Amino acid sequence: MEVVSQNRCFDGVQMVCTHPSQVCGVDMTFGIYLPPQAEDGPVPVLWYLSGLTCTHENAMIKGGFQQHAAEHGIAMIFPDTSPRGEGVADDDAYDLGQGAGFYVNATRAPWTAHYRMYDYVLDELRGLVLDNLPIADVHGVTGHSMGGHGALTLALRNPDRFDSLSAFAPIANPTRSDWGRKQLSAYLGDDESAWACYDASLLLEEHGWKDAILIDQGAGDQFLDLLRPEALATVLARRRQAGLVRMQPGYDHSYYFVASFAGEHVGWHAERLHRRRN
Amino acid sequence: MEVVSQNRCFDGVQMVCTHPSQVCGVDMTFGIYLPPQAEDGPVPVLWYLSGLTCTHENAMIKGGFQQHAAEHGIAMIFPDTSPRGEGVADDDAYDLGQGAGFYVNATRAPWTAHYRMYDYVLDELRGLVLDNLPIADVHGVTGHSMGGHGALTLALRNPDRFDSLSAFAPIANPTRSDWGRKQLSAYLGDDESAWACYDASLLLEEHGWKDAILIDQGAGDQFLDLLRPEALATVLARRRQAGLVRMQPGYDHSYYFVASFAGEHVGWHAERLHRRRN
Repeated sequence: MEVVSQNRCFDGVQMVCTHPSQVCGVDMTFGIYLPPQAEDGPVPVLWYLSGLTCTHENAMIKGGFQQHAAEHGIAMIFPDTSPRGEGVADDDAYDLGQGAGFYVNATRAPWTAHYRMYDYVLDELRGLVLDNLPIADVHGVTGHSMGGHGALTLALRNPDRFDSLSAFAPIANPTRSDWGRKQLSAYLGDDESAWACYDASLLLEEHGWKDAILIDQGAGDQFLDLLRPEALATVLARRRQAGLVRMQPGYDHSYYFVASFAGEHVGWHAERLHRRRN
Repeated sequence: MEVVSQNRCFDGVQMVCTHPSQVCGVDMTFGIYLPPQAEDGPVPVLWYLSGLTCTHENAMIKGGFQQHAAEHGIAMIFPDTSPRGEGVADDDAYDLGQGAGFYVNATRAPWTAHYRMYDYVLDELRGLVLDNLPIADVHGVTGHSMGGHGALTLALRNPDRFDSLSAFAPIANPTRSDWGRKQLSAYLGDDESAWACYDASLLLEEHGWKDAILIDQGAGDQFLDLLRPEALATVLARRRQAGLVRMQPGYDHSYYFVASFAGEHVGWHAERLHRRRN
C-alpha cells in the first residue's frame, strides 16, 4: 500500500492510497479519512460507496464528511467505483465499464477479468485497511446513487460484516430500472435469476435487516424514475422493517444534497458503531 | 442576470449566475449561496474571493461554507478570479491572466481592456446582487491565497464598504513576493509606487483596520515563502492592530485546510455582520 497524498483536515488526516489488487488485477486507488481520535487507537469505520462516473475523489472533496467524522471519531473510506487503466474493459457510455462497476462480480466477457468490485470492497480492501491503518473491525456502510445500491446490497447480504446501514438516493431496484438492467445484463448475462442478489429491494424482501435503515432521497431528484425509491419503501413498510425513507423536498441528485445530510448520516452510523464496539 | 443553475443545499439554495459585465467587458459568472433565512427577507453577505487557477466553483464545491452560512443566516458570494473567454488576454503561466486577476484594475496592455477585478467586485457585482437578490447592504469579506490578498486589500482600502474581514493563507505582501511582483509588474507597469495600494501589509501599516482581523495560515503550507504571513504579522503587532494570525500546525494550502476553518470564519463574520445590522 502506497500513500499518494495526505492533507491535514479537521485535525485528522485525509489520505489517498494505491495498492495492487489481486481481486481486480490492477492497481486500485482509495481515499481514507482518519479522525484525530485515531491517534489514540483504532476507530470504527464508515464505508462510503460512490455513484456513476465518480472516482475515490468526489465524495472526499465534495461531501463534507470529514467534519462530522472528526466530531464523532470514526474513519471513512472512499473506494473507487471500478477498476481502471489500460487493459481494463470499458464502454463509451458513462454508465457501463470504468466508473460504473455497480459493486458486482462480473461473470461475462469482457468484464470478468477485472470487474469484481463486490469482492474487492467486501474482502480485499477491508483486509488491507484493517492490516495497515488504525481501523477497528467495526464497519458501517453508506453510499450515493449506484453507491447507495452498493451499500445496501453489500450489507443486506453480509449482516455479519456491517453494523449500520444508510444510503443517499440509492438505485433501489436495479432489476427494474435502466440503471441496472443494462449493467446487470452486461456483467452477469441475460439470466435474470443471477441479478436478484444485486437488487436492494429484492434482498430486503428476502432477508430484512437487523437494525433500522436510513434512506434520504431528494424529492426533486432528476433521476427518481431510475432510482425507484418506491420499491424499497414498499418493502420496508410491508416487512415492518425498522427504518425510514425520507423524501427531502426540493433536493436534487447532486453533492449539495449529499452534503446537506452528511452530518445526520455520520451521526447515525457513529451511534451504532460506537455502541457495537463497547 | 441569468440563473445558470440552482441546487437546494442545507435548506437554502446554491445558485450560479452569469451577467454581462460593463467593467470587465465580458460575461462574468459567480456563485451565490442564499441561506434559508433569506426567504424571510434580506440577509447580510460574506464575500469569498478565490485563489490562483480557481473559478467561482472551487470554494462553493470544496469549501463546505454552506452549512455554516445556513446556520448563521448569512449569504455567501463566490466571484470568479478573472475575466475569461475569447478575446480576453491570457498567458501560458498559471499565475498570470485568466484565473489570476489578482483583484487589481490593470493599467497596462494587453490587460487593461478586461482585467478590472477590483472595480468589478467592489462596485459592479455588489450593485448587481443588491439589486437582484435578498441581500442586505451589510458586507464581510474573506478569501484564500490570492483571494485572501483580494479580501484584505479591498477591505483595507474601503472600510466604509465592509464590516468584517478575515483571510485564509493570504498573499500577504505581494510587492515582496514572486506571487505579486510578476503580476503587479504586468498589470500595473514597472513603477512600484503604483503597487502599494495592492499590498495588504503596506495598506495595514498605513490605514489600520477598524475592527479585529482574523487570519488562518497552515504552518505546513508549501507556499509559505510566497505568502509571507510574517510581514502581515509584524505590522499587526507593531501597530497594535486588533486581530490574530493563527499558524495552524500541520495544515497545508489546500481546501482541506480552508474547509477545516470555514466554520470559524463564517461565525466570526456573522457575529459582526448581524451586530452591524441591528
